[in-house]
Amino acid sequence: MTALKNDRFLRALAGEKVDMTPVWMMRQAGRYLPEYRATRKVAGDFMSLCRNTELACEVTMQPLRRYAMDAAILFSDILTIPDAMGQGLYFSEGEGPRFRKVVRTEKDVEQLPELNTAKDLGYVTDAVSAIRRELNGSVPLIGFSGSPWTLATYMIEGSGSKDFRNAKAFMFNQPEAMHLLLDKLARGVIDYLNAQIAAGAQAVQIFDTWGGVLSTHAYREFSLAYMQKIVAGLTKEADGRKVPVILFTKNGGLWLEDIAASGCDAVGLDWTIDIGTARARIGNKVALQGNMDPTILYSSPSSIRAEVDRILRDYGQGSGHVFNLGHGITPDVDPANVAVFVESVHELSQQYHQG
Amino acid sequence: MTALKNDRFLRALAGEKVDMTPVWMMRQAGRYLPEYRATRKVAGDFMSLCRNTELACEVTMQPLRRYAMDAAILFSDILTIPDAMGQGLYFSEGEGPRFRKVVRTEKDVEQLPELNTAKDLGYVTDAVSAIRRELNGSVPLIGFSGSPWTLATYMIEGSGSKDFRNAKAFMFNQPEAMHLLLDKLARGVIDYLNAQIAAGAQAVQIFDTWGGVLSTHAYREFSLAYMQKIVAGLTKEADGRKVPVILFTKNGGLWLEDIAASGCDAVGLDWTIDIGTARARIGNKVALQGNMDPTILYSSPSSIRAEVDRILRDYGQGSGHVFNLGHGITPDVDPANVAVFVESVHELSQQYHQG
Repeated sequence: MTALKNDRFLRALAGEKVDMTPVWMMRQAGRYLPEYRATRKVAGDFMSLCRNTELACEVTMQPLRRYAMDAAILFSDILTIPDAMGQGLYFSEGEGPRFRKVVRTEKDVEQLPELNTAKDLGYVTDAVSAIRRELNGSVPLIGFSGSPWTLATYMIEGSGSKDFRNAKAFMFNQPEAMHLLLDKLARGVIDYLNAQIAAGAQAVQIFDTWGGVLSTHAYREFSLAYMQKIVAGLTKEADGRKVPVILFTKNGGLWLEDIAASGCDAVGLDWTIDIGTARARIGNKVALQGNMDPTILYSSPSSIRAEVDRILRDYGQGSGHVFNLGHGITPDVDPANVAVFVESVHELSQQYHQG
Repeated sequence: MTALKNDRFLRALAGEKVDMTPVWMMRQAGRYLPEYRATRKVAGDFMSLCRNTELACEVTMQPLRRYAMDAAILFSDILTIPDAMGQGLYFSEGEGPRFRKVVRTEKDVEQLPELNTAKDLGYVTDAVSAIRRELNGSVPLIGFSGSPWTLATYMIEGSGSKDFRNAKAFMFNQPEAMHLLLDKLARGVIDYLNAQIAAGAQAVQIFDTWGGVLSTHAYREFSLAYMQKIVAGLTKEADGRKVPVILFTKNGGLWLEDIAASGCDAVGLDWTIDIGTARARIGNKVALQGNMDPTILYSSPSSIRAEVDRILRDYGQGSGHVFNLGHGITPDVDPANVAVFVESVHELSQQYHQG
């Protein structure tokens, strides 16, 4: 493997000295880029793009050609796992993801096969290998998965949801079946992420998009416990370097201490929490990733710069911060504003890494 | 005015001794009740129901006939204020509230008239008077309003929103115009709530439904500051008794200390925060209201009872707690489950109010 030319991202996650704060964006390979929309058109539907090694690699690389991002992230979807477990994922235009089968009973859970990454998700690991080759050591590659709770909500609801009534009723009324499901998913996620690491992922992020809709008690029992299990089961090193794990729970600001104690290397923050407060609560126990409100990218260059400046100042001196948005970039942001964002992070952060 | 027969709710808000924990539900006069749906049918559309004094009074009373609620809440909508300011509220089936006019420029804000409650919202104060007469001292009546920030989001977006991009872009790019708008709304809310108090409301709640989508900095500057202004401007007493103010910011758990310092009497909690933790953070500075996940009402009686028990145990000994859901009750809950909920609160809470 080629040596990394830019390891700012991995160094910041390890709390090691950097020259400036590294930056990447959740969903950076996405619809706000005209070249993404063009490639997507060639591929056909969204899942065909995920399944096409060459095109998945192409869209992963696109933001790196435009911006000085400090990391690449595999282009894929969190719902590849339930799809590979036979749930029949499809996307209906304007309505988001849907599943042909739903999980509603203990029997449904028992009949669900164990995930077989090698057999059913070869297209993901193939994409990881291809991207890693294409990156040629320029920046590290991040692999990812949805959290068991987040995957379970889609599998039970059969789609996205406003109030997660079916997933929550399942959890309240059939807690044993829910634990069985989450345990099966956690095993699947471990297998999936370790396969990504074996194929070349140099860091992994677990997206717990819907953990924040739970009560504190339910979050600990039904979401965090399984992410903790995953962290414990992951490959620790690759190419002689630690493979850091980032846990991102949207609306998880109340539970920072719990998340930081899970064994992860970094906590992903959404934009609702002040990053200075987050650092004060966690200390330097783990790194922090985040946390600009993605809607700021709709505003003016001077507003974007001011907000980057504020977040850097709130975090303060020293390493341990990976700059990111607090959630994925939205489809109709002006790509020129992303350039302002990335440049502002690099330029304004240097003063916090001197001495 | 008739003396209050049941003042458990007001006593708990004041931290005074009670025999059991009082309980009411946000949106308790609502679609889960067949008698509500029947009355709504008679009225025609939703706003006609709000505007009909007799029917608004009827639906307010309906949950009290079924359940031993410790408070009534005025049946109305938070969007009566922008409607009365000329924005043209209407409801399109299945799509939620919409406005014919939107606020997008400083000129739009300047042209917006000051709210005139007496002239344009007489139907609300008439409903308050009628309900108060009908209650005849059985339980206290709660008046309410949306927060300035929450009202502003609807007025700028022209509808509900997933990411509030217009409201946020307005805030980032035209902060002075945004402050002008919020200030005008805060004056309107003060006028509106004081009129409700004059008409008979014995407590008021401010619903900051969308404050939780802001960053900590933006929340303080664009939402909390205006609620604080409102609290300071409200009538302090009616019928020789304090009129308590409850501030409810959905997803506001990170900012409890700030909210509690606003001058309010109680903080409304959504279900994501553990109420024991909330009490430990705030002490007995203000009362707490909440905070059961409304989706638990989809589960079994034993699950509902267990969750009520857990929340009561987490809160612990003594007064200062008004039991409620962490958000409004949803339309298709079984009314029998609400009976289980209310009875469980009253029965299981008595042990925490002895001695």
